[in-house]
Amino acid sequence: MIGLSLMNVSSNKPTIGSRLTALFPIFDWMRDYQRTDFSSDLIAGIITAILLVPQGIAYAMLAGLPAEVGLYASILPPAIYALLGTSRTLSVGPVSIAAIMIASALSAPEIIDQGDPVTNAMILAAETGVILSLLSVFRMGTLVNFISHPVLVGFTSGAALLIMYSQLGHLFGIGKLSCGLNVDCFEDMFQRIKPVAMTIGILSVVTLIFFNKPLSRLLKHCNINAVLVTAISKSGPLLVVLVGALIASKLATGNGIVAPTVGSVPAGLPNFSIDLIYADTWQLLLPAAVFIALIAYVESIAIAKVTANIKRQRIEPNQELIALGSANLAAALTGGMPVAGGFSRTMVNFSAGAVTQMAMLIAAGILACAVLFFTDVFENILKTSLAAVILVAIAPLVKPYAIVKYWSYDHSDCVAAALTLVGVLTLGIEQGLGLGIAITLLSYLWRTSRPHIAVVGEVANTEHYRNIKRHDVTTWPHLLLIRVDENLTFANAGYIENYIHYEVIQRPELRHVVLIFASVSYIDTTALEALENLHTSLATNTIILHLAEVKGPVMDKLIQTSFLKKLTPGKVFFRTREAVTELAS
Amino acid sequence: MIGLSLMNVSSNKPTIGSRLTALFPIFDWMRDYQRTDFSSDLIAGIITAILLVPQGIAYAMLAGLPAEVGLYASILPPAIYALLGTSRTLSVGPVSIAAIMIASALSAPEIIDQGDPVTNAMILAAETGVILSLLSVFRMGTLVNFISHPVLVGFTSGAALLIMYSQLGHLFGIGKLSCGLNVDCFEDMFQRIKPVAMTIGILSVVTLIFFNKPLSRLLKHCNINAVLVTAISKSGPLLVVLVGALIASKLATGNGIVAPTVGSVPAGLPNFSIDLIYADTWQLLLPAAVFIALIAYVESIAIAKVTANIKRQRIEPNQELIALGSANLAAALTGGMPVAGGFSRTMVNFSAGAVTQMAMLIAAGILACAVLFFTDVFENILKTSLAAVILVAIAPLVKPYAIVKYWSYDHSDCVAAALTLVGVLTLGIEQGLGLGIAITLLSYLWRTSRPHIAVVGEVANTEHYRNIKRHDVTTWPHLLLIRVDENLTFANAGYIENYIHYEVIQRPELRHVVLIFASVSYIDTTALEALENLHTSLATNTIILHLAEVKGPVMDKLIQTSFLKKLTPGKVFFRTREAVTELAS
Repeated sequence: MIGLSLMNVSSNKPTIGSRLTALFPIFDWMRDYQRTDFSSDLIAGIITAILLVPQGIAYAMLAGLPAEVGLYASILPPAIYALLGTSRTLSVGPVSIAAIMIASALSAPEIIDQGDPVTNAMILAAETGVILSLLSVFRMGTLVNFISHPVLVGFTSGAALLIMYSQLGHLFGIGKLSCGLNVDCFEDMFQRIKPVAMTIGILSVVTLIFFNKPLSRLLKHCNINAVLVTAISKSGPLLVVLVGALIASKLATGNGIVAPTVGSVPAGLPNFSIDLIYADTWQLLLPAAVFIALIAYVESIAIAKVTANIKRQRIEPNQELIALGSANLAAALTGGMPVAGGFSRTMVNFSAGAVTQMAMLIAAGILACAVLFFTDVFENILKTSLAAVILVAIAPLVKPYAIVKYWSYDHSDCVAAALTLVGVLTLGIEQGLGLGIAITLLSYLWRTSRPHIAVVGEVANTEHYRNIKRHDVTTWPHLLLIRVDENLTFANAGYIENYIHYEVIQRPELRHVVLIFASVSYIDTTALEALENLHTSLATNTIILHLAEVKGPVMDKLIQTSFLKKLTPGKVFFRTREAVTELAS
Repeated sequence: MIGLSLMNVSSNKPTIGSRLTALFPIFDWMRDYQRTDFSSDLIAGIITAILLVPQGIAYAMLAGLPAEVGLYASILPPAIYALLGTSRTLSVGPVSIAAIMIASALSAPEIIDQGDPVTNAMILAAETGVILSLLSVFRMGTLVNFISHPVLVGFTSGAALLIMYSQLGHLFGIGKLSCGLNVDCFEDMFQRIKPVAMTIGILSVVTLIFFNKPLSRLLKHCNINAVLVTAISKSGPLLVVLVGALIASKLATGNGIVAPTVGSVPAGLPNFSIDLIYADTWQLLLPAAVFIALIAYVESIAIAKVTANIKRQRIEPNQELIALGSANLAAALTGGMPVAGGFSRTMVNFSAGAVTQMAMLIAAGILACAVLFFTDVFENILKTSLAAVILVAIAPLVKPYAIVKYWSYDHSDCVAAALTLVGVLTLGIEQGLGLGIAITLLSYLWRTSRPHIAVVGEVANTEHYRNIKRHDVTTWPHLLLIRVDENLTFANAGYIENYIHYEVIQRPELRHVVLIFASVSYIDTTALEALENLHTSLATNTIILHLAEVKGPVMDKLIQTSFLKKLTPGKVFFRTREAVTELAS
């Protein structure tokens, strides 16, 4: 079925139906939607909603925003994604890494001066949406490749450490920590620890850790239905948050609260708002929005692929840009914060049995009911409970071992990951990510600027030509065979030219140079000019330049230029063997 | 001879002699220096000096600096380069493109506030020297590859146009033009044109154009010795400048000068000066210095290669960084401006018969005599004459035709060149170059992120496997052969994964996927993880992933990881044929 509909999309004459499906992937599954699918999606949707409520509130707090901003971001944005996204199970909403990036962006002094943080968060969401949409229009989604996997691991590890540090204060009922390495400040903090908050906080962490894996194992041991196991174990966060609120409200006396709470949450659905025209703020927030958009997209695609691959479904990167961009615009219009696909939530949704985005539509509906009818309950939620939820959710993202392990396979990848982590912790979130991207690009260019080149000779009595340094091969004093193992571009043209000249200088009897282009799929202008220069300078020394094994597409382009004419009396040989037969004798 | 000495340098156990030669390439030719070499070098040195005097003064004016700054930069810097450089004929000294970059850097308001432009120019030279030296220490010379040839052409065309515009005012005796597109201002300018200056200026341009090519052709026609032809035709600038000065001083009356002159030039050699400690200025000039260093290096290397290739000599890029870095430090210490290898001057030096850097040592000696004894003459040199010299020298650098021509071979290279030109003219010199570099990098990444991949099949009864879209080949419903024609990196891992998944989805009977790595020389961490993910997701669909034709170096690295173990029951086949034999049946 999937294969068929995809083939429709990619066939030469798209039908109206297939076009509609490409624009709104929801039609892809809606047509064949079964009653059994719905019962699976219903259960998954409820379970995901149970997780989404505390996460929405917690990540809003993490971003330094009121609870409702996180809840609003969990209603319309996932519904819009359900309409437009190609993943059947991605759970779009507030996510932790984006939340700390939002916090970092909103806490810059020049942004604070711009007033209301909620408005600023909406602007950030709008910009994120616009950036993602523009990337889609220009089909530039592949540009997120800038962020290599090691840099992503370094970045998320660093960001997760920052998140954990930011939540420790809340866990102990102190509020935001901002001591740095000031010892006096820490002493002062100790004085301010609220014992009740701390006790609830630590118990919450222990409970959540227990719910995470030990409980599921225990329940599975008791032969309980798998979906029920997921439902129970994933209700940990909601349970912790609600029980915490209950205890605190019972303990509260006339003397005041025993631990800081989320505070009043307005009841009712968010209003549509388009009051976003603050040119200065837009400009100031733009750099942060670029990074948030990149990370939102990279993370979402990565997670979407994991579940899609298991089910042999396909993620269409460009459509994902549209879907995530629209989800963020929806967040901006309904008082939400920037959104992305959340890793843990998507895995919960998937393992709870979600078959389609119907699950997320159900979850969004439940969230809408929550803000309509249960905001009274949310008011009493303790910040210490939310800190516990965040800490337990975020801890697995810190992966020092993975970073160390990179070393054995590729030193430069390990260094890039480590420097990104250190950069995030010392320079700041965006700066650290920027540093990681810069390192990746530089080391990539450095590497491609030194391509593998080999002087080759003939393996006796065969048509094989191998590196003279590795194999015992026949060579000729007046014939030089050189194989270049990379595309010829500005990045390596100089290196290759230099290499060839060096080999030429060492061979006083040389008459012919044959470049073997078996691995060359592309020659850019700079490299073409380098080849022309090479031909000219060899010609002044009465050495003739030839080419061999030039691929079809490369030949097609060369024929359009005057290079092949200039090359005369040099030839283009179809196979290296032909060159040797003609020139070696 | 050259070959031999190079082999010494590159042999496994370097002798003290070869080490010395590597550090000071001057010893490479000094050892075998002949009397006949000296007579060639003497003539070339004199001819180059004849060109260097007016160029030194003119490019100083272009940079907005007093004449002596250009002359000083033509004494010690070329001498230092002669000691350290690997090119035998490169003429190091003030160059036009660097001069306009210096002018742009020094005319920024925050730099003007820092005081004396001469000190600022020296700081710029010191920074350029330090940057080039650092690039050498970290062996990062290849990073200048950022600047592709089309971007360089766009940049020099744009810079040359700016230079020409800047000199028009001087040509007419008005001084600096700064009208932009203001018509009133132009009218005012017309009023201020000095007729004598304009007449001398236009006549100078005509004379220089005549000296450039028509005169050499004429003289060659008369069977005059080639070196003498070069000497006569290259004395044009000096002649124009001196005759202009003579006429102006004769015409000068009590009413004042008829055209602006260079003004007093202090007699005597420059003092060694180390009074360069202005931390603020250093920081402010650093970005400009980075761009000047890049351009100085790129241009010098390009020119050095042209002459070296003709003579089968070798340019050692890293040693060039040291030589050019030291030359710029020498300029900074002796009151000079940043220096580089000049294109026209080097070609003059070469065609005048220079065999070694002795020619440039002689030229530097002549320049030293000039500042010792002839500064009185320089005082009367007219700015209009210098403008004529600059205009005629710079005009060939504007290459609109070359930029248009790029289109036919590579659209993106043409766009990069054109946008760099427009960027230089509208945004500024450094900004334009930065834009060009950014476009190059982005389009490079975009291209490598979409590598060539082909589903291949067997050409009947052969061992050849070809693209199913281009050839009539045998395929099997349960076996998919995919050939990837590029190294696997973060830049394309996602694209490749996506491509393979798409092909897999369309083949319901699929059991085996074989990736043919014949063109893959490198797999980075991100791509390795993508391969692992691919294996895992295929495995969940009971499809087995195999590899074929994995190159030695790639296999060496894979063996260090757990990937090959995880791949089981997938295999690594030496040849595609073996995979087909085993899996197709």
